[in-house]
Amino acid sequence: MKPLQYESVIPLYHQLMERLKDSIEKGHWIPGDKIPSENQLMDRFGVSRNTAKKAIEELVQEGILYRIQGKGTFVAKPKLQQSLMGFYSFSKVLKEKGLNPKDVILKIEEVKPTAKIREALQLGEDENAIEMKRLRCANNEPYILESSFIPKNLIPNMDQLKKVGDISLYDLFAQEFNIVVTRAKEAFEPVLIRSEESEYLQTEEGLPGLLLERTAYDVNGTSVEFCISIVRGDRCRFYTELT
Amino acid sequence: MKPLQYESVIPLYHQLMERLKDSIEKGHWIPGDKIPSENQLMDRFGVSRNTAKKAIEELVQEGILYRIQGKGTFVAKPKLQQSLMGFYSFSKVLKEKGLNPKDVILKIEEVKPTAKIREALQLGEDENAIEMKRLRCANNEPYILESSFIPKNLIPNMDQLKKVGDISLYDLFAQEFNIVVTRAKEAFEPVLIRSEESEYLQTEEGLPGLLLERTAYDVNGTSVEFCISIVRGDRCRFYTELT
Repeated sequence: MKPLQYESVIPLYHQLMERLKDSIEKGHWIPGDKIPSENQLMDRFGVSRNTAKKAIEELVQEGILYRIQGKGTFVAKPKLQQSLMGFYSFSKVLKEKGLNPKDVILKIEEVKPTAKIREALQLGEDENAIEMKRLRCANNEPYILESSFIPKNLIPNMDQLKKVGDISLYDLFAQEFNIVVTRAKEAFEPVLIRSEESEYLQTEEGLPGLLLERTAYDVNGTSVEFCISIVRGDRCRFYTELT
Repeated sequence: MKPLQYESVIPLYHQLMERLKDSIEKGHWIPGDKIPSENQLMDRFGVSRNTAKKAIEELVQEGILYRIQGKGTFVAKPKLQQSLMGFYSFSKVLKEKGLNPKDVILKIEEVKPTAKIREALQLGEDENAIEMKRLRCANNEPYILESSFIPKNLIPNMDQLKKVGDISLYDLFAQEFNIVVTRAKEAFEPVLIRSEESEYLQTEEGLPGLLLERTAYDVNGTSVEFCISIVRGDRCRFYTELT
């Protein structure tokens, strides 16, 4: 790696970050590799402990490195770049990136909707919903914990939902229930991953996650699904284009 | 408030949450109001401590209530609903909602761009950028900490940027520099708010925030701004429509 420029106006920790990122981008280090310790970085780059520490800390916060207590600092997997527009084709995005998508269905059951779900699905007081809760994985690693709520009257036979995973929910909607999803509203906000969610997502409580709520509509403007997702912030990054 | 339905399949804590939310939505309690203590909720609704505790915890996690250690639990301000599409008219959105927007400019200075900024702005090795760092407030409360990086060669006179706040950056671009922003790419991910950011944002370190990175382009497809924003997760919620 190139030595740092001690005379530059660019802070040394920043230069060190760039060098470390370079090594990752060029493939000298791959995800899971242990990077040099603070002491090794101090020796190799002639920087102070504070500079080495700050460079590592920043890269951990950017999600490029991660720490294991007592073991060291390692190269993280790159985040999945996910277009917000194409969000409901999660499996397709994964396939295009050469990742193996898999849905683990956690439950399919009839539920009494909460007020929020009832409102989103425009259900009457006595109408129930079907909840399908699933863990959406890439290469066997969980990325998203997702609950879809669907008006019960749209689903003559709950068992058919078990096919989801082999085909997408919206393809199933079209094929089996004659429902064509044409539009969706999505709201999102950053949250801390909760204990129960962290167990499913195999991550830690208190890490950043994205809470996504989507309402999907058919051609007639009837809401056919309300979906609540928790997305691992250390695995996904979203992008969109504005014109 | 209506009593809870003890025979219902809807869990009691959930019913209690709905009752409390109702009181907030109907304006019986307003932001800053202290809500009843666990003991008072137990008495008033005939529920166990666990149920009262869980209802409050969930509402805190939803951002509807907040706690002050040793003082109690209070009604939070509603989140700002912000269309992702209209993100670069933050001030306009605030005005429409009757909130008073204000930009506090923290610094305007020439900087050597990092590799990331250089790439986004398509700058050569020796080209500098102008950084404008500002705190974007609503009703004198900080919502977003934002750094805009602009190629130096586009800005003949840095001082003109001081007008931002009175007019939007993109209006200034058009009026003073003959730059018309027509397109932007935006990437976002959930993060934890860092110590330094929390001081500007008058919030706590470790709370959820949204990191937004935007590159704005003019009619010729030249990148004219790279902007990094940290948005308070407890104050903003984003939405978008997909078709």
